[in-house]
Amino acid sequence: MEGKGAAGVKTKVVQTAGKHSPFEDASRGLPIPVCRIFLSDDGKIQPVDFKETDVKLECRDYTRTMQVFPRTMARNNCIVLEAVRSASPPDIEGKRVAVLFSGGPAAGGHNVLAGLKAVLGKKNSLFGIRKGPKGLIKGDLFEITESSVQEIINTGGFDFLGTDRTKIKSREQFEQVRETVVRNKLDGIIIVGGDDSNTNAAFIAEYLETEGIECSVIGIPKTIDGDMAVGSYLPISFGFDTATKVYSELVGNLAQDAASAVKYYHFVKLMGRTASKITLEVALQTKPCIALISEEIAEKNMSLDDIVDHIVKVITLRRLKGINHGVILVPEGLVEFIPEMRRLIKELNHVLAEYEADIRDLPTLKNKQEFIYPRLSAQSAQLMASLPEEIEEMLILDRDEHGNVKVSQIETEKLLIEKIRYKVSELKRHPHKYFGKGEGQIDATPEEIETIKGISLSTQSHFLGYEGRSAKPTAFDAAFTFLLGLTAGSLVLAGKTGYMAAITDFDKGGRILALPLAGLITSELRKGKEELVIEKSLVETTSPSFKIFEENRERWAEEDLFSNPGPIQHWGPTSRQLPIIVSLDQGYDDFLHFDLGEERKLTFD
Amino acid sequence: MEGKGAAGVKTKVVQTAGKHSPFEDASRGLPIPVCRIFLSDDGKIQPVDFKETDVKLECRDYTRTMQVFPRTMARNNCIVLEAVRSASPPDIEGKRVAVLFSGGPAAGGHNVLAGLKAVLGKKNSLFGIRKGPKGLIKGDLFEITESSVQEIINTGGFDFLGTDRTKIKSREQFEQVRETVVRNKLDGIIIVGGDDSNTNAAFIAEYLETEGIECSVIGIPKTIDGDMAVGSYLPISFGFDTATKVYSELVGNLAQDAASAVKYYHFVKLMGRTASKITLEVALQTKPCIALISEEIAEKNMSLDDIVDHIVKVITLRRLKGINHGVILVPEGLVEFIPEMRRLIKELNHVLAEYEADIRDLPTLKNKQEFIYPRLSAQSAQLMASLPEEIEEMLILDRDEHGNVKVSQIETEKLLIEKIRYKVSELKRHPHKYFGKGEGQIDATPEEIETIKGISLSTQSHFLGYEGRSAKPTAFDAAFTFLLGLTAGSLVLAGKTGYMAAITDFDKGGRILALPLAGLITSELRKGKEELVIEKSLVETTSPSFKIFEENRERWAEEDLFSNPGPIQHWGPTSRQLPIIVSLDQGYDDFLHFDLGEERKLTFD
Repeated sequence: MEGKGAAGVKTKVVQTAGKHSPFEDASRGLPIPVCRIFLSDDGKIQPVDFKETDVKLECRDYTRTMQVFPRTMARNNCIVLEAVRSASPPDIEGKRVAVLFSGGPAAGGHNVLAGLKAVLGKKNSLFGIRKGPKGLIKGDLFEITESSVQEIINTGGFDFLGTDRTKIKSREQFEQVRETVVRNKLDGIIIVGGDDSNTNAAFIAEYLETEGIECSVIGIPKTIDGDMAVGSYLPISFGFDTATKVYSELVGNLAQDAASAVKYYHFVKLMGRTASKITLEVALQTKPCIALISEEIAEKNMSLDDIVDHIVKVITLRRLKGINHGVILVPEGLVEFIPEMRRLIKELNHVLAEYEADIRDLPTLKNKQEFIYPRLSAQSAQLMASLPEEIEEMLILDRDEHGNVKVSQIETEKLLIEKIRYKVSELKRHPHKYFGKGEGQIDATPEEIETIKGISLSTQSHFLGYEGRSAKPTAFDAAFTFLLGLTAGSLVLAGKTGYMAAITDFDKGGRILALPLAGLITSELRKGKEELVIEKSLVETTSPSFKIFEENRERWAEEDLFSNPGPIQHWGPTSRQLPIIVSLDQGYDDFLHFDLGEERKLTFD
Repeated sequence: MEGKGAAGVKTKVVQTAGKHSPFEDASRGLPIPVCRIFLSDDGKIQPVDFKETDVKLECRDYTRTMQVFPRTMARNNCIVLEAVRSASPPDIEGKRVAVLFSGGPAAGGHNVLAGLKAVLGKKNSLFGIRKGPKGLIKGDLFEITESSVQEIINTGGFDFLGTDRTKIKSREQFEQVRETVVRNKLDGIIIVGGDDSNTNAAFIAEYLETEGIECSVIGIPKTIDGDMAVGSYLPISFGFDTATKVYSELVGNLAQDAASAVKYYHFVKLMGRTASKITLEVALQTKPCIALISEEIAEKNMSLDDIVDHIVKVITLRRLKGINHGVILVPEGLVEFIPEMRRLIKELNHVLAEYEADIRDLPTLKNKQEFIYPRLSAQSAQLMASLPEEIEEMLILDRDEHGNVKVSQIETEKLLIEKIRYKVSELKRHPHKYFGKGEGQIDATPEEIETIKGISLSTQSHFLGYEGRSAKPTAFDAAFTFLLGLTAGSLVLAGKTGYMAAITDFDKGGRILALPLAGLITSELRKGKEELVIEKSLVETTSPSFKIFEENRERWAEEDLFSNPGPIQHWGPTSRQLPIIVSLDQGYDDFLHFDLGEERKLTFD
């Protein structure tokens, strides 16, 4: 069968190894828009200046902020800065800037490096810190060259530097960071990360300032969850657009498949520990029959049974219309937003901590249960007893390093499926309870009830997470991150510290801002201890994006109105889209196009 | 926060419901190539004529074929037909043709309908059969209009007609099919399906011929598994290209993510019950550190332990190079290709059948085990006892409707993960067994061994299947299916029956063929009964595609050489690719471009 051409194809297959697929090679050449203020008269990239706006960021606990960040406050006063085009940028040279990735990967990290490299130019040096904050502590740096930037531009992942989740907290760690800064004569550290990492950046900035070391610390807002966002100053963090578009492609495909095979309900758990923004965006992109939004469930104080009842009702109403398939979206963090589950977990953590040794000594699971149940409140005991066996077992046996229940490991979608199956069969055995003209009952004829009894429920469960974090960035994320890099580099060159780079007005050329990190940090009590953190931006049930979902979801539940946004396109008419929730909540005219400046191919000439 | 534009975006979001995302709307307008022989002098689509080639398809059991399909044989003589351009196509009118989808969805089904509609033209009628073979039996038909074709063209899924898996076998079912044909005055039935469905098509063709009913029965080769293929006459079935490209996108993303987060091994099970073609194609697209190929494992008579040892060795060699992450591909059907597992399942099925009532009566799993173990061979008993608890429980308790072990439900990726974890910890406790200079041992210094002992194994498991079946077809699948529709319609208009539409020479304009179905069917013994089926096309370990994988996999195992083929592009420089295994095995010069004729937008004027 081997023809004359096989040798050629063979060579090509081998050559594509190591990130040189035809797609990857073509992607590297894709142009990136650049806001006009970053361009010199002859069209070259140059740093911007910053001027103070009249906006002061004051978080909930402003007096506490002043206590914790006295030096930063004295310098920045929590004022938002806005970038302006520099008429004649000073010829800065010899600056040494290092950058690290922190936490889970998000699409566009490599373009942050490209932006930094482009704005620092040939006269300053950019260093990469290997494997995240741990590398900063260890001083594991290497110089990033122009040719390596050409190699990574527009590619996904954080693999050029690696990442980790170390939190810099102890005195010793801060001293090690200082050591790294001094030894490497760094003028700037760029921390690419989420809320925890940007909180870290604020503390490092304050620490270096206190130590009298002139080194800018600048944060860059990254998280696929979209919960690093600051109203109209920073509509979203980078990585959200790409991740939600990967998930929307797959959910759209599953909806199409469900309608084709006409037998499955696909339960899709979507990554996102806290905010349900990913789920809301994917729902607006794909119109599934159900999408659970954690924030709404907490606000309405819904129980697990309420949620199960709602899903079973939708499934039954669809059956009455002859539809026995669909897609149900479940946010990963759901369990912690169900008030009664939250209570149960809190009580369990308390019992497990107080009687740790006793419980450990009991030989069987049954013994442990006999010991734990009397120590819970009656409501929590009843709830725990009603959970599927594996979930109960997991709650009792699996603990994290602090001895707490591993909430993130709870297989929420399987918990729901099991409880829904039970309720669906109950509905068949006791139809009079569920069908009728009473409140909350479903109105159906005896024939319809008989038909429904004959229908079986087939389910499939999915978890979408890792496959969306390291995809090649969408055109939007590619531009957003490149511009964040240009902004962060400009902030270092301008000698600013304790800021987070930010961009807004994605629909009209982009507006470049710097947000004072200290102004974003609030004081929270967590397990009885004060924790200073950047507040997460959650789904607001009063926001335009939630309202549009709320107004339409009943139709999407009762009919098959899904749409498939397709795979992310990097060429062609649909390749310039924005996240729908951003477009809605920011009041843009359109989600089909963004405008972040003039498109140009990155070169280093 | 609601701005002036939100109303506009809101309207757009609502308008996209019901398959009108910007992507879906743009996709409908994408041009499709049409082979020149289907074009009239003035560029309109017209049916082709067919001439006999000198190729006769003779399967393994030719005499049996002659017995089973005497009428079809008398008519077709198992000769392959080739399409030729019709100089002056006869003006055929009033023909009534019906089409159905059978089995799991595959991308491009809707374009088959578009091709049929285009070639039948305004003077003949096309009917859709609802919900697969069941709809043919029940006579559930509706006329497909031009406007509905404009709505579904280039969209994924089978949802316009639906599908099911009914096999038409009984006398009564065949009579019901005749009834449908006669009542609806059908001149042709097009069956879009896999090996079973095309076998069905052959039997229906023979039956109708025997009954003296002039109605063409034509099959169309569909299956994402790629196992409906006939050497150089039909290099692949439709849907394979799209499904493997969706899976390759996700595997590429996971590889990128693994290299970024630097801690996980992702075990990815890929759909495909029998052939490992999907796994081979995805491996050539992405270069994972390991890809298991079932056909090779069967050929080499590898045991479960051999496979586990191999994976642990690769993981350890990577650790020696400082790599502690990667992607491992596992074909869904693997278990049945491991000879010892196959034996165990066979023995278990035998015991479960013979002692069904005894086993059912035993109250606990332990009792059942005590009963079953002495009745297995020692080897099988030992193997079963070494399996993880849940797998053993599943083997004993879960049966299909025939009382057999549900092989397809075995969570192979989890079985492997569990056994690998065990072996990795054994390697830490007994390093002398695994490290050293002996055969099969790993050569490492004492320091390296200590380092390896400190590394933990984190795994994630994934199953990729449903998300790839109903995606929008790739440019290749969109063209392939449209042309298959044109071919099948032409065969009906030419009064041919018992053929499968086929296309080959994807690299040079396309060559249109018709393969005699009876010539593809062989006689197999399954559970002691003769079964007449189309032989599945499996991975051949002598094929160029397997050889290139074999030559390169060691490098891909020892270094991180993955590549990410990206999401399927429908516009731009990478949107015209072919499956790599097809390009290799057919001896094409290239996998970056196909040539199936002149691109044109479908219109019905």
